[in-house]
Amino acid sequence: MKILLLNPNTTVAVTDLLHAAGSKVASAGTELVPATAARGVPYIATRAEAQIGGAIALEMLAEAGPGIDAAIIAAFGDPGLFGARELFAFPVVGLAEAAMLTACMLGRRFSIVTFAGALAPWYEECVAMHGLSSRCAGIRTLDGGFQSISGVQAEKEELLVALANQAVEQDGADVVILSGAPLAGLAARVRDRIPVPVVDPVAAAVRQAETLAVLKPRKAVAGTFRRPDPKPTLGLAEPLAAIIEHRSPKEGTD
Amino acid sequence: MKILLLNPNTTVAVTDLLHAAGSKVASAGTELVPATAARGVPYIATRAEAQIGGAIALEMLAEAGPGIDAAIIAAFGDPGLFGARELFAFPVVGLAEAAMLTACMLGRRFSIVTFAGALAPWYEECVAMHGLSSRCAGIRTLDGGFQSISGVQAEKEELLVALANQAVEQDGADVVILSGAPLAGLAARVRDRIPVPVVDPVAAAVRQAETLAVLKPRKAVAGTFRRPDPKPTLGLAEPLAAIIEHRSPKEGTD
Amino acid sequence: MKILLLNPNTTVAVTDLLHAAGSKVASAGTELVPATAARGVPYIATRAEAQIGGAIALEMLAEAGPGIDAAIIAAFGDPGLFGARELFAFPVVGLAEAAMLTACMLGRRFSIVTFAGALAPWYEECVAMHGLSSRCAGIRTLDGGFQSISGVQAEKEELLVALANQAVEQDGADVVILSGAPLAGLAARVRDRIPVPVVDPVAAAVRQAETLAVLKPRKAVAGTFRRPDPKPTLGLAEPLAAIIEHRSPKEGTD
Amino acid sequence: MKILLLNPNTTVAVTDLLHAAGSKVASAGTELVPATAARGVPYIATRAEAQIGGAIALEMLAEAGPGIDAAIIAAFGDPGLFGARELFAFPVVGLAEAAMLTACMLGRRFSIVTFAGALAPWYEECVAMHGLSSRCAGIRTLDGGFQSISGVQAEKEELLVALANQAVEQDGADVVILSGAPLAGLAARVRDRIPVPVVDPVAAAVRQAETLAVLKPRKAVAGTFRRPDPKPTLGLAEPLAAIIEHRSPKEGTD
Amino acid sequence: MKILLLNPNTTVAVTDLLHAAGSKVASAGTELVPATAARGVPYIATRAEAQIGGAIALEMLAEAGPGIDAAIIAAFGDPGLFGARELFAFPVVGLAEAAMLTACMLGRRFSIVTFAGALAPWYEECVAMHGLSSRCAGIRTLDGGFQSISGVQAEKEELLVALANQAVEQDGADVVILSGAPLAGLAARVRDRIPVPVVDPVAAAVRQAETLAVLKPRKAVAGTFRRPDPKPTLGLAEPLAAIIEHRSPKEGTD
Amino acid sequence: MKILLLNPNTTVAVTDLLHAAGSKVASAGTELVPATAARGVPYIATRAEAQIGGAIALEMLAEAGPGIDAAIIAAFGDPGLFGARELFAFPVVGLAEAAMLTACMLGRRFSIVTFAGALAPWYEECVAMHGLSSRCAGIRTLDGGFQSISGVQAEKEELLVALANQAVEQDGADVVILSGAPLAGLAARVRDRIPVPVVDPVAAAVRQAETLAVLKPRKAVAGTFRRPDPKPTLGLAEPLAAIIEHRSPKEGTD
Repeated sequence: MKILLLNPNTTVAVTDLLHAAGSKVASAGTELVPATAARGVPYIATRAEAQIGGAIALEMLAEAGPGIDAAIIAAFGDPGLFGARELFAFPVVGLAEAAMLTACMLGRRFSIVTFAGALAPWYEECVAMHGLSSRCAGIRTLDGGFQSISGVQAEKEELLVALANQAVEQDGADVVILSGAPLAGLAARVRDRIPVPVVDPVAAAVRQAETLAVLKPRKAVAGTFRRPDPKPTLGLAEPLAAIIEHRSPKEGTD
Repeated sequence: MKILLLNPNTTVAVTDLLHAAGSKVASAGTELVPATAARGVPYIATRAEAQIGGAIALEMLAEAGPGIDAAIIAAFGDPGLFGARELFAFPVVGLAEAAMLTACMLGRRFSIVTFAGALAPWYEECVAMHGLSSRCAGIRTLDGGFQSISGVQAEKEELLVALANQAVEQDGADVVILSGAPLAGLAARVRDRIPVPVVDPVAAAVRQAETLAVLKPRKAVAGTFRRPDPKPTLGLAEPLAAIIEHRSPKEGTD
Repeated sequence: MKILLLNPNTTVAVTDLLHAAGSKVASAGTELVPATAARGVPYIATRAEAQIGGAIALEMLAEAGPGIDAAIIAAFGDPGLFGARELFAFPVVGLAEAAMLTACMLGRRFSIVTFAGALAPWYEECVAMHGLSSRCAGIRTLDGGFQSISGVQAEKEELLVALANQAVEQDGADVVILSGAPLAGLAARVRDRIPVPVVDPVAAAVRQAETLAVLKPRKAVAGTFRRPDPKPTLGLAEPLAAIIEHRSPKEGTD
Repeated sequence: MKILLLNPNTTVAVTDLLHAAGSKVASAGTELVPATAARGVPYIATRAEAQIGGAIALEMLAEAGPGIDAAIIAAFGDPGLFGARELFAFPVVGLAEAAMLTACMLGRRFSIVTFAGALAPWYEECVAMHGLSSRCAGIRTLDGGFQSISGVQAEKEELLVALANQAVEQDGADVVILSGAPLAGLAARVRDRIPVPVVDPVAAAVRQAETLAVLKPRKAVAGTFRRPDPKPTLGLAEPLAAIIEHRSPKEGTD
Repeated sequence: MKILLLNPNTTVAVTDLLHAAGSKVASAGTELVPATAARGVPYIATRAEAQIGGAIALEMLAEAGPGIDAAIIAAFGDPGLFGARELFAFPVVGLAEAAMLTACMLGRRFSIVTFAGALAPWYEECVAMHGLSSRCAGIRTLDGGFQSISGVQAEKEELLVALANQAVEQDGADVVILSGAPLAGLAARVRDRIPVPVVDPVAAAVRQAETLAVLKPRKAVAGTFRRPDPKPTLGLAEPLAAIIEHRSPKEGTD
Repeated sequence: MKILLLNPNTTVAVTDLLHAAGSKVASAGTELVPATAARGVPYIATRAEAQIGGAIALEMLAEAGPGIDAAIIAAFGDPGLFGARELFAFPVVGLAEAAMLTACMLGRRFSIVTFAGALAPWYEECVAMHGLSSRCAGIRTLDGGFQSISGVQAEKEELLVALANQAVEQDGADVVILSGAPLAGLAARVRDRIPVPVVDPVAAAVRQAETLAVLKPRKAVAGTFRRPDPKPTLGLAEPLAAIIEHRSPKEGTD
């Protein structure tokens, strides 16, 4: 089974973190195929960047081709997820979606704990977009900057553990989600220092993507995620244009 | 990995259906351990029966012992689920919960399609209990009786497919869940006659239970699902009494 | 008029408190018939215990027989209430339900003030189950243990009054509900030390049960609380089995 | 016990209907004191009329004086209720509020069935004002005019019963409320022709007013229903002006 | 274009503040026609006063006559707004409504900052009445009294700015609304001392009233704001009675 | 005053419709500056297209330069709106947002009536994104295809009027919004054939953009719409890259 692990950010080191953490929970026959955005920002943190990054995620999915059994949009906030679910026949799961739905099986309310305050509005809208606001105890973020996006989990480990404990004690969290992508792998390292289950989004996403691939749901031909009718496009990346226009991609054009 | 497939109803033939459908999606190393309630009703369909059946589910979980990696409460409606999540250290997932959360990754709104009108109020309260009402397009049920609980899926196949199609066309369902336990296995058979993804609750539950077992979440020692303090009991089934009293079960008493 | 005052816990001293406080507001012709659970736990405090205690409440209601005009399930959290409303022809009211609905006539938002933190998750789910979350200003609980369940109201009186005052000042409560059953009678004693109306759940429940008995609503034969069709049972307490099977109870079997 | 039965409409015949239906369920020692608005409209049916009628209700309550143990604002829609709850020391209950809260103890969702389409928007906002929208299965109204407001229940009896049955069958109502004031007494007459419990708002209101009078809640001195500080007024009805200004009413001025 | 600027309070000095602040943003051809209530209270602060003041607002609108292009009910809380929208053919906008809807275009959540704690319950119900609770970050009010209602904005300027900053920092407000009518004009003076956009309700209301006047929406003849059928009245102010009875006002009667 | 009228679709003829309808309600001193997307799709109708079109809208806003007083994202569904509100100092309003907020001042619930079923899921998520679901009576769409996107309003006029009337009669709409951009100008032509106020989104948007420009709200430096900190980018359109990186755009690069 091939699962596309799509990082819509441009930081390869974060893709590596995601791949490493995801591989630890992948089933024997699963191949995780990493991909890093060729354009965009080093890490998506705002609504504007999610708007842009989501469009890039669609381009990347279109490029990934027909050999994929399922795909993960590996940025917490799930940029482009619903659009992807319209366009493609293989299942697509979001990092936030997978983490939150998994957390729902471990407690009544989850808290999202992350490393930068700029992420909170986007995360909050993501929770609402999935209809899960009543299951969310809150979003807690660290103040202050950090040295590098791929090193932030090491740099802030103590502070993040303390923040997670506050989420449990003060917000009533039954589960903690350590997000987003740059914290991949942290949950496994700190689980014993937080008194409730801790969810690693990429671990959850790999398992959920496998589940969808095993269940082999048919592509909807009705409902809101049926594939849209073909439509002409202008100036879009060729593989994505081909998908929207319902035609084979032109060779050598992108 | 050992997963307890707990049927809180007394009908062994339904347990067999659950086991057969669950086995098809279980991973290589997974052993599904079936269990059927020794007391209760042939199939839970009302709030009163869910109240009783949930208490029986707790007894059965207490009896199942320490070798379990995860458990499924295999009645759609999830009787006893939150109580189980308090009492036990292994992860417990409900049939409805697993089906609905999986469906959330396949569409915006799911419909629940089932064979008996008596189930609707209980199902509706279950959806609300999980905070998923905004993701539910509706609950559709067949009118009329049926010949046997374990044969109902064969007897009503055509009608259920028609009902699922109505859910898509009239209620705007993106996904259909065919429930409850007595319909285990039906989804695989009818998937091509319904224009959106169809979720089989037991298939979803087996995969989600595996996921929880692989992620190995710690047992909460804080939050609302921490294990309750020990408390004396009177007249309860011995293994459950032992769990509540925080002691080893007395031998030969149950 | 005979009103069953059903304590689904095993502590007779709490039943006595309930009876004493309820009697003070009962109308002249009302007879309160106390009943204490023969099996279960000394006081229900968790979801698991509510699951078990609700099943026991159904057994007790089945046993109480045809001479009852209305019944009160006298544990705040209302274990078994909706199942009872299905099975029985006489009106049944829950302690929490009666207290909250009465409080709604005295203010915009009520706070629930109680003696043990373990109760909060169960209470919160009870508020939501009744669709009253928007009317609830919060649930406040004391920390720390207590000496005896029937003596807790005396032991903690000062702390509970202080907590109620915090609910008014900090949470914006217009009304305070002192719960659950072990605090029966406390409201009358402390009412002048709390600046808003204080509701005693059992007092509210006795009056609401009387109201339902006087209004003599017919037993639903449609809707979600019509009596379920007869169904075979296995291993249930005889009077409850008889109710579910729509037959007369067998003599000498329970 | 004296309970003011305040009709904020100008139709004495409707007050008589209310008094007759309310008297049937009142306790032995209860005296219902009827009052009919001296100005306003024959029956309130719109938001504009409720705005005016609610102000008149406050005037009437101010005039009713200190001998009252509780008051009922006897127009479904509860004009002036929250303002009354601020200004007066005795408990005040609304016709809609009492009916809906009582209905909540008889089913999961109630339907409101009434005789004129013009009432629906006002009723709907009343349900929302009380935070009970999730408990309301719908509002059904007859089309067409009627001959007299006090005779409408006789004229439309068959149609209203048919409408109530539709509410049960099509909207999933567990309980039916026959409203508003001009239908007082109808519920008792038609209860056997509707398959779920039927609530008569004035019967519910009399019992709930009695309950509040017996429970003797203190007047709030904190929270949102504490009495407002004194404030000068200009041109208001003298007894109401006196209440707002915290002074004794001037004699002979109104 | 003539816009009625209706102050349902009796304080002319507040009308002057409203007129001055409104005039600064009015378009070239707009004439603001101020009106001050001849009866009522100096400023509406409670639900009881809003009930009375809303009825007075309807009287004032009826009196204002046919030359008006649009009207503003210039008390934050919008007393009588929905009733006015039923009765009159010209558009009517509320101060709170205009401020909140305008704020929605400037941020995700607005906070309402005001000078007296007594206003909070009424404001909160106003937010809910408009279906905007999810857009409201909170309502913050000053403690303590003030010297005069028309001087309160000068007296409390520093405290209000501090409160607005707290709303941003602690409640997550993206926008601040300085309300109600007595603060008209303050926003313009303090905008640089608050780090998010600040909305002056009367400025917003004047612009929104102009917008409605320019868009010239037809008077509804269907839906919940169609004009109610004629109905007899008793003892109401003559111009309002004429509107309700669908007749020309009698001369010299009011 | 210069208002950018940004069409994120590639169809110039639709931009012309928008400009014509918007010009009719613009104030004397207002200049509407039309802009049509140079890449993308002829009209956005799905989530995928909105994801792409929203990113294009950000590029267009970045290009539009510093002379703009306010901007309108003129596709119903508001692609890129919240991102735009982060990045830019001038006010930005969405077509759907402006139409819905304006409609809120004309009725309790609005219906959205449009020409293609494919739009409904995107519109529904847009309503929810703005927190206005409780104000929306429904979304009604025509079945079947159409000949050209710029001619669809002429081709379907009768059907759209009929659909609007159904929304009023069957869904209880108080106001109808005729959307999206390709219907610009239709509302003025059909207003007398629909019994409730009809809102033309571009007319509403032009007036609301003017209002924001007149009120001159400061750019937030706190809250969720403060401008994000500078961040490196890779491969984005130069003007947008410059905005995100907080630098002047490089000349001749785009």
